[in-house]
Amino acid sequence: MDQKIIVTIARQYGSGGRAIGKQLAQDLNIPFYDKDLIQLAAKESGIEENLFARADESPSNSFWDTFASNANLFGNKPLTINDMPMNDKLFVIQANIIKDIAEKGSCVIVGRCADYILRDVKGTTHLFIHSDEKDKLNRIINSYGVSEKDARDVMLKTDRQRSAYYNYYADNKWGRAENYDLSIKTSALGITGTVRLIKDYLAIRYGV
Amino acid sequence: MDQKIIVTIARQYGSGGRAIGKQLAQDLNIPFYDKDLIQLAAKESGIEENLFARADESPSNSFWDTFASNANLFGNKPLTINDMPMNDKLFVIQANIIKDIAEKGSCVIVGRCADYILRDVKGTTHLFIHSDEKDKLNRIINSYGVSEKDARDVMLKTDRQRSAYYNYYADNKWGRAENYDLSIKTSALGITGTVRLIKDYLAIRYGV
Repeated sequence: MDQKIIVTIARQYGSGGRAIGKQLAQDLNIPFYDKDLIQLAAKESGIEENLFARADESPSNSFWDTFASNANLFGNKPLTINDMPMNDKLFVIQANIIKDIAEKGSCVIVGRCADYILRDVKGTTHLFIHSDEKDKLNRIINSYGVSEKDARDVMLKTDRQRSAYYNYYADNKWGRAENYDLSIKTSALGITGTVRLIKDYLAIRYGV
Repeated sequence: MDQKIIVTIARQYGSGGRAIGKQLAQDLNIPFYDKDLIQLAAKESGIEENLFARADESPSNSFWDTFASNANLFGNKPLTINDMPMNDKLFVIQANIIKDIAEKGSCVIVGRCADYILRDVKGTTHLFIHSDEKDKLNRIINSYGVSEKDARDVMLKTDRQRSAYYNYYADNKWGRAENYDLSIKTSALGITGTVRLIKDYLAIRYGV
């Protein structure tokens, strides 16, 4: 494919956004990035991988976290990446990795504020994938074999976390239609139908 | 067409949402509803048409508006549609008309919280159409021959009004992706490309 295709996917938990991204990347025969980014980031930075796993996709914890980490500012030392809270370090490192990946060639990137990080890169396609609550719960229950109560708890908690992460780092509102080129409710189309619609979008936009 | 197709369109001012709805209805050969609803509502209710035009798509003005209108409650009379502020009356009448229209057959309805009013009608498709600011301004300037400052003023004012109207009557957040089946930024696709994508969506969803 001559046309460079960069697709970012933000998604509600249980909406099937990750599966859609994976299927889309496979159909287009282009790389797919998700948790792999964490390993890449860890390798590049030399910071221990399990620290990253804990910090991943949640904003800095509190004022005190930031305060403690920046305490040396009071000694008038210049601020470096080492002075940032762990989550902020991870964000900066992942942002650089996401920019490098997008620079290299076509890809699908799920989560991690990729739409915001690549907002100034012309020709990228930013998607938001969501679903009716009932469908999200069913997907979570069927995928993990948990009770409806547990499914609802993890769904609400994860989306709260994703929203807080996005709103903190992207200085924008997660899930607002205007942030994205295309937002799709998967309830009526399913995974296959949604992937088909995204490919139709890319065909109309890029003639691919 | 055997399949009943009901499409509601919420749209940012200057995004081309109305033109898209009109083109879509024409392509599908189904009725299109917009301002016509006001005339229908006026005829049905017998309330003067120009009063409706003033009240259209803005929420009730203030506490005092509501207070004055409901003052007879203090006399323990039961509340009727005649006791409501003008905007609320218009909303109730339009909501009934929208439900009747959707009951009758396929159609495209622009604005007027139609997505919320028809939220429990199975198989309806709810769209949100938006655009980058630069593109909205260009569309407004080209359509009305106004200055950029005037275009920006009317754009911000109209969207604030639409958002307030929706958030007041729909008890929901205007422009949140999860309210709609499909939200499309028209910047990259234009009117024709967006109509094509919507038809692709309907084809995938309903096999039409």
